Amino acid sequence: MNIGILGTGNVGDTIGSRLIELGHSVMMGSRTADNAKAAAFVAKHEGKASAGTFAQAAAFGDILFNCTRGEHAVTIIESIADICSNKILIDLTNPLDFTKGSPPCLIPSLSNTYSLGEAIQKAAPQAHVVKTFNTMWCGIMVNPMLIGGGDHINYVCGNDHTAKQKVKELLITFGWKKENLMDLGDISNARATEAILPIWIRVWAGTKNNAFNYRIVS
Amino acid sequence: MNIGILGTGNVGDTIGSRLIELGHSVMMGSRTADNAKAAAFVAKHEGKASAGTFAQAAAFGDILFNCTRGEHAVTIIESIADICSNKILIDLTNPLDFTKGSPPCLIPSLSNTYSLGEAIQKAAPQAHVVKTFNTMWCGIMVNPMLIGGGDHINYVCGNDHTAKQKVKELLITFGWKKENLMDLGDISNARATEAILPIWIRVWAGTKNNAFNYRIVS
Repeated sequence: MNIGILGTGNVGDTIGSRLIELGHSVMMGSRTADNAKAAAFVAKHEGKASAGTFAQAAAFGDILFNCTRGEHAVTIIESIADICSNKILIDLTNPLDFTKGSPPCLIPSLSNTYSLGEAIQKAAPQAHVVKTFNTMWCGIMVNPMLIGGGDHINYVCGNDHTAKQKVKELLITFGWKKENLMDLGDISNARATEAILPIWIRVWAGTKNNAFNYRIVS
Repeated sequence: MNIGILGTGNVGDTIGSRLIELGHSVMMGSRTADNAKAAAFVAKHEGKASAGTFAQAAAFGDILFNCTRGEHAVTIIESIADICSNKILIDLTNPLDFTKGSPPCLIPSLSNTYSLGEAIQKAAPQAHVVKTFNTMWCGIMVNPMLIGGGDHINYVCGNDHTAKQKVKELLITFGWKKENLMDLGDISNARATEAILPIWIRVWAGTKNNAFNYRIVS
């Protein structure tokens, strides 16, 4: 499949590399077509990756991964909304607010009674936004078997049932077990998954280990 | 030990009953000394339990459990602040806001950049507030072995190290394993544990099972 990765950070690089490993073609998009990290990504995956603007990567992909920074995500998606129409837009972002000290809180206008997931769906109303993967370190996203035999939780939410099904199928190719992909319902449930970040960050700070996730015990 | 339970709801009843089972004397406090639920609790535990006002229960207890409803908790603690001085006040409350529909969000003024735990510490500045247990159903609080061999997480935070140590010792008598009691630091970390409620509520709604908790897998 052709997949567009929006964002050139560690998350985008990790997701993109795993997708290439699984046989997909990836275009990494950024603000400018000559981004150095995107160029390094392309060099690393010679012949299987390309780089371009956000608009070019969005046009390239049958499925898009939004790996941009939370504070910029809405503006970026708004600028390419038309290109995202009818495409699956997998949203991994979190509305982290680093302006009030450490540990970060959530951006007040994008939390509790609203969410970044909803804001992104609103920014690209014809896209099929599926929120997932935002509650863990990217190394676990692409290789869930790294910890606990792969038995830990990944939440999925979004308004389009078919889109969620397709995303789950893709995540299963990453090593996720179907029973660990919990569908919470529509995109408003991003309010809950994004609200996990404050405790995630503190557990990480306390244990000095970001290679963890949560298992539901019952 | 003499223990004061503030609040006559299901959580207070469950905690109080477990404490009596473990040999403690419990006074259940409520707004009025003749509360029907408190009377039923006393009748159920003849000779080992008593009931009174919030002030009477706070005076009775060497350790206090705040099991009041989140929206009333600050006012109640404020009204008995002097009596709580130098006592351990275990705070189990959550700032749930049911006024904006279902599932509830958190009370905006008591979340993200602030928390109910901090507001309670501010309301009773001489009390040693320890936030814990607010991330699970009360049946699991008092009997962690009910699920997953007892291996799941309970967060603890508060400003007083000695108070936290004493609370952990008490929780261990409930069946908690020391390694599953994660100390997050001072009371400001209640921002993170209270923010778990939105996802907790959705998992409960989705699975129809409140007898669950999270295990950290790494």
